[in-house]
Amino acid sequence: MTTSVQPILFNGQWVASQGTSTFQAINPATEQPMPQVFPVSPWSELDAVIGVAHEVSREMRGWPGSRFAEYLETYAKEIEARTDILVETAHAETGLPKAPRLKDVELVRTTNQLRQAAASARDESWRVPVIDTASNIRSMFGAMGPVVVFGPNNFPYAYNGIAGGDFAGAIAAGNPVIAKGHPCHPETTRLFAEAAVAAIKSTGMPPGLVQLVYRTSHEDGLKLVSDHRIGAIGYTGARTTGLKLKAAADGAGKPIYLELSSINPVFMMAGALAERLEKIADEFCTSCLMATGQFCTNPGLIVVPAGELGSAFIKAVAERFSKAPVGTMLAEGVRKSFLAAVQTILTAGASLVVGGQSGGGKGVSCQNTLLKVSGKQFLANPHAFQTEAFGNGSLMVQADSVAQMAEIAEALEGNLTGSIYSDTTGKDDADYTIIERVLRTRVGRLLNDKMPTGVAVVPSMNHGGPYPATGHPGFTAVGMPASVTRFGMLQCYDAVRQSRLPAVLQDKNPGGVWRRINGQWTQADVG
Amino acid sequence: MTTSVQPILFNGQWVASQGTSTFQAINPATEQPMPQVFPVSPWSELDAVIGVAHEVSREMRGWPGSRFAEYLETYAKEIEARTDILVETAHAETGLPKAPRLKDVELVRTTNQLRQAAASARDESWRVPVIDTASNIRSMFGAMGPVVVFGPNNFPYAYNGIAGGDFAGAIAAGNPVIAKGHPCHPETTRLFAEAAVAAIKSTGMPPGLVQLVYRTSHEDGLKLVSDHRIGAIGYTGARTTGLKLKAAADGAGKPIYLELSSINPVFMMAGALAERLEKIADEFCTSCLMATGQFCTNPGLIVVPAGELGSAFIKAVAERFSKAPVGTMLAEGVRKSFLAAVQTILTAGASLVVGGQSGGGKGVSCQNTLLKVSGKQFLANPHAFQTEAFGNGSLMVQADSVAQMAEIAEALEGNLTGSIYSDTTGKDDADYTIIERVLRTRVGRLLNDKMPTGVAVVPSMNHGGPYPATGHPGFTAVGMPASVTRFGMLQCYDAVRQSRLPAVLQDKNPGGVWRRINGQWTQADVG
Repeated sequence: MTTSVQPILFNGQWVASQGTSTFQAINPATEQPMPQVFPVSPWSELDAVIGVAHEVSREMRGWPGSRFAEYLETYAKEIEARTDILVETAHAETGLPKAPRLKDVELVRTTNQLRQAAASARDESWRVPVIDTASNIRSMFGAMGPVVVFGPNNFPYAYNGIAGGDFAGAIAAGNPVIAKGHPCHPETTRLFAEAAVAAIKSTGMPPGLVQLVYRTSHEDGLKLVSDHRIGAIGYTGARTTGLKLKAAADGAGKPIYLELSSINPVFMMAGALAERLEKIADEFCTSCLMATGQFCTNPGLIVVPAGELGSAFIKAVAERFSKAPVGTMLAEGVRKSFLAAVQTILTAGASLVVGGQSGGGKGVSCQNTLLKVSGKQFLANPHAFQTEAFGNGSLMVQADSVAQMAEIAEALEGNLTGSIYSDTTGKDDADYTIIERVLRTRVGRLLNDKMPTGVAVVPSMNHGGPYPATGHPGFTAVGMPASVTRFGMLQCYDAVRQSRLPAVLQDKNPGGVWRRINGQWTQADVG
Repeated sequence: MTTSVQPILFNGQWVASQGTSTFQAINPATEQPMPQVFPVSPWSELDAVIGVAHEVSREMRGWPGSRFAEYLETYAKEIEARTDILVETAHAETGLPKAPRLKDVELVRTTNQLRQAAASARDESWRVPVIDTASNIRSMFGAMGPVVVFGPNNFPYAYNGIAGGDFAGAIAAGNPVIAKGHPCHPETTRLFAEAAVAAIKSTGMPPGLVQLVYRTSHEDGLKLVSDHRIGAIGYTGARTTGLKLKAAADGAGKPIYLELSSINPVFMMAGALAERLEKIADEFCTSCLMATGQFCTNPGLIVVPAGELGSAFIKAVAERFSKAPVGTMLAEGVRKSFLAAVQTILTAGASLVVGGQSGGGKGVSCQNTLLKVSGKQFLANPHAFQTEAFGNGSLMVQADSVAQMAEIAEALEGNLTGSIYSDTTGKDDADYTIIERVLRTRVGRLLNDKMPTGVAVVPSMNHGGPYPATGHPGFTAVGMPASVTRFGMLQCYDAVRQSRLPAVLQDKNPGGVWRRINGQWTQADVG
């Protein structure tokens, strides 16, 4: 049996890569290489891909949102038609459970996101049309050019560079996408690309609307995100790589939307533990161990009161961690990073409650790991204790007082989420206020009595937060239409003749688009 | 007569600077130093200023928008009460005409901006409240922390770090401001600070709400914008300095809103010149020479058809430039940069039509300067021909065809504005479409038959554009509420108890705030 290298998707065609080096994903459950071999694309290839995307971007200028909506909806159906093979493949490449996770949760979320993005494109809500009649000035967001999307290892569907939220937003805003597959699940990504091509053909979109490369050198990745023909970049992944891409894109003046890291602090008020300790321990363990802890919103730092209640909570969690099955990790790199992070936290002075060792599950795995540290120790070295241990582990901080909890909140870096558990009858309300004042400024999403791992795809969601969780605290990667608007540029029309205006800015509004006219939101015509 | 050094404004007090070096502004009309001496603040001083702002930021968390609105409105009145001295002083420091420019245009715009920002704070529109009832998730923009504002040399009022649009937006969003005065007009800035302090006192705001330093070393400026306690930065000014600040802020993950440079291309379709050449020449000369050409939206690049019409237009402009009075420039540095830019453009191959020499007006001045170049030459070296000559000059490009005009548009860097003049009866419509398709992607604001220098302060305005005009094409520095929202972080509340929600996210909406509830904009209560 000969091993052929998979082609890249270039301008609607499956084309042999010009690259000379290749890679294979590893099945983390068997620790054996996957059969497919994928290319590392050289710069000449990326350059051609960008050129095509640039032309497509120009070709599509001014197209109505309905065209992009039809494409996204058709693509969602093409994905659904490939459910079985997508589930088999992603399971083999990532070790994530087939059901409910891959089939019933993540794939459904992914097609749902594509359809919500389609709805935003169709109702033009992402454009935020604003009209002032006295000055005859009108503005809206419009397409900004080719978008490069880098997906992470932990969501082979919902954040995939060719199928996830950034992809959906970029297309809904009328931009071509250059997808950079994640090397942990290239075959899953290739299957999406087949669905993407089928949808392009059946909806008559430009062949170069979606293109795919699997891997580049680090140097070429930096060239890619800083190329003058690129409109914007979406990146979800490890902080180190993300910061390099950010520096390159920032230097070229290219908007880059990043999701980099988060330890998602959870503050346990004494009243909550007194009221329902066992229930909260259940909720926490489910959230922390779900998908072997490999969620961007995994609760990695739990602040509990020192003393009996906190100790009882730690004990309850430790018992559950010991008994719970150990999941398979996404890849050997994840295991190494996890163990290294655990070591960093131990070296800084935390003590091990349970776990901490490699193994315990099928294939690539580490024991469910619980660490603990005093509030005083945490505050002496907050940077080290905020090391992200991406995986099935968490650090408990035992705080001497609510005031110390607030100090801990103050010492936090930016996070996607922050949770506060409190007594349901109001006994913790004064303490809540003290913590909330500080925590609110450190996180994008604040939760009450709820673990952070569920990310509802609704307009009010903020899957974002202050640096270094992301690169800018004003943007969300999840939730339409805001996540679509990120991929538009603000376009103002000053005294532009009526017939020359984009449809959504003309006086007549047959589609009932929501527009802010003279300061009031309305679906009516002008005048 | 002894010369005392002006104090800085620290935490509500006028405090002697710890700095050892000082500077004086120069009256550009007399070329003599102004009497006041101002300090260069050392890092220790900046550090203390940031510390105060950080505390104030925490103190004001959760305050209703009405408090910031009252402050901004009171400040506007305090400014108006100082009109005469502000006009005298700014005239002396900048050489800008007292009337109508300073007194009747810019000062009125400035107080108008403060009042519009107040209205946005009061009606909470800048927060963009979004509520989804099924998931009980709610979000809005909230204050993000101390904002540093750097104002430019060319608008001593409307973009002043302590009174301009970025200032107004930062305060309306509930943030304290650290103003960095521009060294060309420090006494004007100090007068604003007196008004700001009076307004703080009479509205009972924290003394550290607004603080002022006049100058820092370059190194300390970079430390200031990258300090961990800073929420965001607004900068309007020269590109070189701006890019250094951007690199520092980007590296620290701090949002920085920049307005860097723009040559504001104007495309003249043949039909427009055939129809109304003399009228357009009048409009252009008024726009280009207004305020000695020292506007960010000054039309610096005019693309005309080669041949008789274009030549006649250049001749008409040249006659007007020769006859028009020569204005005083803001500062010696502006004159030097202008002459250097003219030289760069000449060296690249343009020819001089009129002007080009220093002098001709009162004090610091240069002749009204017109340059020309062929379309072919422009396209051979587009970078050099896009050198910004900030002042009373412009470059005419004679394009062989509409196709070449489109190529020129394609070669443009990002700009704040782009204008197209065309025949009013529709003869140029096909050509318009060809140019617009390209120009639209290069500019923040597209104008028809209108010069770009007027920037209306209305919600639909976009005073922004693709890099290097600004740092991000999705933001505008002018127009409420969008320019206010820049200074907020997106704050999501997931299952947060009703009584703990910010007022604008609670079910009841007594103030009639516009909110998007379940996808529909409404002023009603939830449910």
